[in-house]
Amino acid sequence: MKQLILTLAICISFQISAQSDAEILRTIYTNSLTNGMSYQWLDHLSNQIGGRLSGSLNAEKAVQYTKSEFEKLGVDKVWLQPVMVPRWVRGALEFAYIETAPGMTTNVNICALGGSVATPIGGLKAKVIEVGTYKDLEALGEDKIKGKIVFINRPMQPELINTFEAYGGCSSERYSGAREAAKYGAVGTIVRSLSSRMDDYPHTGSMSYGDLPVSQRIPSAAISTNDAELLSNMLALNKDINFYFKQNCKQLEDVQSYNVIAEITGSEFPNEIILVGGHLDSWDLGDGSHDDGAGVVQSMDVLRLLKESGIRPKRTIRAVLFMNEENGLRGGRKYAEVAKSKNENHVFALESDSGGFTPRGFSFQCSDAMLNKIQSWRPLFKPYLIHYFEKGYGGADISPLKSDNIVLAGLRPDSQRYFDHHHAANDTFEAVNKRELELGAASMTSLVYLIDTYGTQLISDEVELKD
Amino acid sequence: MKQLILTLAICISFQISAQSDAEILRTIYTNSLTNGMSYQWLDHLSNQIGGRLSGSLNAEKAVQYTKSEFEKLGVDKVWLQPVMVPRWVRGALEFAYIETAPGMTTNVNICALGGSVATPIGGLKAKVIEVGTYKDLEALGEDKIKGKIVFINRPMQPELINTFEAYGGCSSERYSGAREAAKYGAVGTIVRSLSSRMDDYPHTGSMSYGDLPVSQRIPSAAISTNDAELLSNMLALNKDINFYFKQNCKQLEDVQSYNVIAEITGSEFPNEIILVGGHLDSWDLGDGSHDDGAGVVQSMDVLRLLKESGIRPKRTIRAVLFMNEENGLRGGRKYAEVAKSKNENHVFALESDSGGFTPRGFSFQCSDAMLNKIQSWRPLFKPYLIHYFEKGYGGADISPLKSDNIVLAGLRPDSQRYFDHHHAANDTFEAVNKRELELGAASMTSLVYLIDTYGTQLISDEVELKD
Repeated sequence: MKQLILTLAICISFQISAQSDAEILRTIYTNSLTNGMSYQWLDHLSNQIGGRLSGSLNAEKAVQYTKSEFEKLGVDKVWLQPVMVPRWVRGALEFAYIETAPGMTTNVNICALGGSVATPIGGLKAKVIEVGTYKDLEALGEDKIKGKIVFINRPMQPELINTFEAYGGCSSERYSGAREAAKYGAVGTIVRSLSSRMDDYPHTGSMSYGDLPVSQRIPSAAISTNDAELLSNMLALNKDINFYFKQNCKQLEDVQSYNVIAEITGSEFPNEIILVGGHLDSWDLGDGSHDDGAGVVQSMDVLRLLKESGIRPKRTIRAVLFMNEENGLRGGRKYAEVAKSKNENHVFALESDSGGFTPRGFSFQCSDAMLNKIQSWRPLFKPYLIHYFEKGYGGADISPLKSDNIVLAGLRPDSQRYFDHHHAANDTFEAVNKRELELGAASMTSLVYLIDTYGTQLISDEVELKD
Repeated sequence: MKQLILTLAICISFQISAQSDAEILRTIYTNSLTNGMSYQWLDHLSNQIGGRLSGSLNAEKAVQYTKSEFEKLGVDKVWLQPVMVPRWVRGALEFAYIETAPGMTTNVNICALGGSVATPIGGLKAKVIEVGTYKDLEALGEDKIKGKIVFINRPMQPELINTFEAYGGCSSERYSGAREAAKYGAVGTIVRSLSSRMDDYPHTGSMSYGDLPVSQRIPSAAISTNDAELLSNMLALNKDINFYFKQNCKQLEDVQSYNVIAEITGSEFPNEIILVGGHLDSWDLGDGSHDDGAGVVQSMDVLRLLKESGIRPKRTIRAVLFMNEENGLRGGRKYAEVAKSKNENHVFALESDSGGFTPRGFSFQCSDAMLNKIQSWRPLFKPYLIHYFEKGYGGADISPLKSDNIVLAGLRPDSQRYFDHHHAANDTFEAVNKRELELGAASMTSLVYLIDTYGTQLISDEVELKD
């Protein structure tokens, strides 16, 4: 008992006495790894709620759940910010097959791309023309495309170390493929899934018809990487095979939803806002654990870990769970619009939307001077193997906040496995490792602590750390 | 066709012309990620062969398979090095339950520890005494221990970032627990599995009775982390519950097995040997994909990637697939013994035995001067996010080679998930990510290339890179 009291006394004094930055980071990481809430929250979001497509019942459940969990934390403010979101629904039963001769069919795995129109009620069957990129369409011309299904078979480049770069290299095939193919009279498009793996999961994601008249819009689906290879091989043997697919998706009226917001009000500079966030909506095929349940629960845990670690921030720390990143970015746009109308001063925004994998560091949209300042914190992060502090993208939801007065930042987890799961039915809770998720939450909290302590206003590049 | 010829011409010239180190590393990584063999070899080792406990039929199949694959590579020499290995077998059916009252039982998941004796033929049932570490036994004394099963319930510390450190903190409970408990008259030991996760898998691993007489040896098993918590909670409610377990393992006579060795003979300094290796044996519960199928196939791929990348090494590069790391280290000892008897000059040895996860860097047993030299290569590795170059352990199999003339090194992959799978039934092929495995093989090949190019003999700390 004496020992217990002593231990408690040490703990309490440890929290309130002046600590070095290194000690504070150690406290944050220990708290995350020993009593973090990220994993438990993600379990609920993923397994009790599930996929959270904008406008769905699940998305609304997630709004209520996270608001209620924020309230339990006893932070200074919790509120919902209304935002109108698009509502696209997949509908029941989508399927596809390759037909080599009448009655000779091979089923393949497809899913409608988000935003696509449905096929005719009886499905769509046509000859197929394969291209490597939608840019090949022009050379083929209407003659060779008209009446056919365009199959865009562009694999992610495996030699790129950062898988986001490989994704970026072919995401426009998915986004714009149908629009481009329709111009040449195609009746549908089938796009190779943007996945780093060979497997049977089709990966959805947003697509757009741009300003194409409604009457010219053609259905567009993703096909699994294994089946893309199969289809390509079968076409090499016989150009005259038919492809059949049926999907029942539709775009309904916009509905009201919410960004979920919570904050710890700053003790010295309450008007300087440091934002952390992720997006609460997800695609519908899996439960959205990596994209972006992980970013949601990590952002929530930043507020909690600051409190648990006895940190009273000088600036306002605000966690924002954005709605509708996947197919509209309405939440991110609304948040920035309201912030502007209220003349709020956001000095820093950090987004976690790259999966719940082992964190490697952060990317920053900022000045050289600010990057130098952040890089001077490297030694503090070294014990946690956080080594990546480079210029780069912050995140989609925070991008509308961009101005000269804000530093935008993104958590950069290890990217090797992300696109194995991204937008597919295997983006599930089981694919998230508890420790990896918790290390991400701790890394975000540590960066937020340092930004709060040392600010983003630079007088010179010289930075002294507390020791 | 013209384009193909041009591409081929570029490829060939790319291989034979003078390239910078940065270009060579880029070629190595690209080759590994686009046409690496690691994953395919691992698929065979794991799914066509399976767990490879020393002395088992599977271990011998793995010897023949890897020898044959080495031969297909067209390297300069391939041979088997005979070594006598212990043969411990698990036997059929092991099971356990907690008995709260006669007939009231709850099954729990256990597995015999490697090297343990069997229980009596009808199993072993006794009261349980729980300790946090085997060091608590002395304070309890024979009075409280005699006739009971000692339950050592020591969790891995979650707050340690490097999970190997957490593992090291409690691996002696598993290794020495039974020997220590037997001294106080315990009839058996149950050890909490060394796992970073809460789940139902028991994790085996080696244990030793030291010089304890055979008649005093007591059976020892690991219990899953979930069931360790269950048992602990039930004991907190009622100290008088019984624990029953039955296991049928035994130690047979030693049998002959082999280290599998292949080399590319050095073009300038054939007598300077650079070794890369992993261990071919594994535990029997899973298929040993991470421990250490990954290290085996990565080491094999080092030879292949050097050839594929057009590198003709100056020094001899030798891949060694060691037998019997898990329960004897006989392969490692035999290799060092033969090397010494032949007066071979090993200048560098690199082991991969920490799982097939995303590589973070390497640890080195070497001089400060050599570490400085290696750290000067950091910029070359930066594009591949390889950032960890620190002093530390090389690996078990290469440790018998230790001398003043050799640098020992270990690949350091991300460690967060390793002990979720280590020595358990879920150490399977599905738990290995292709890209992560291939990045490890490329990182090893790159380090070997640089060591071969710049040597390990230091005249000064100044190192110039080719550019």
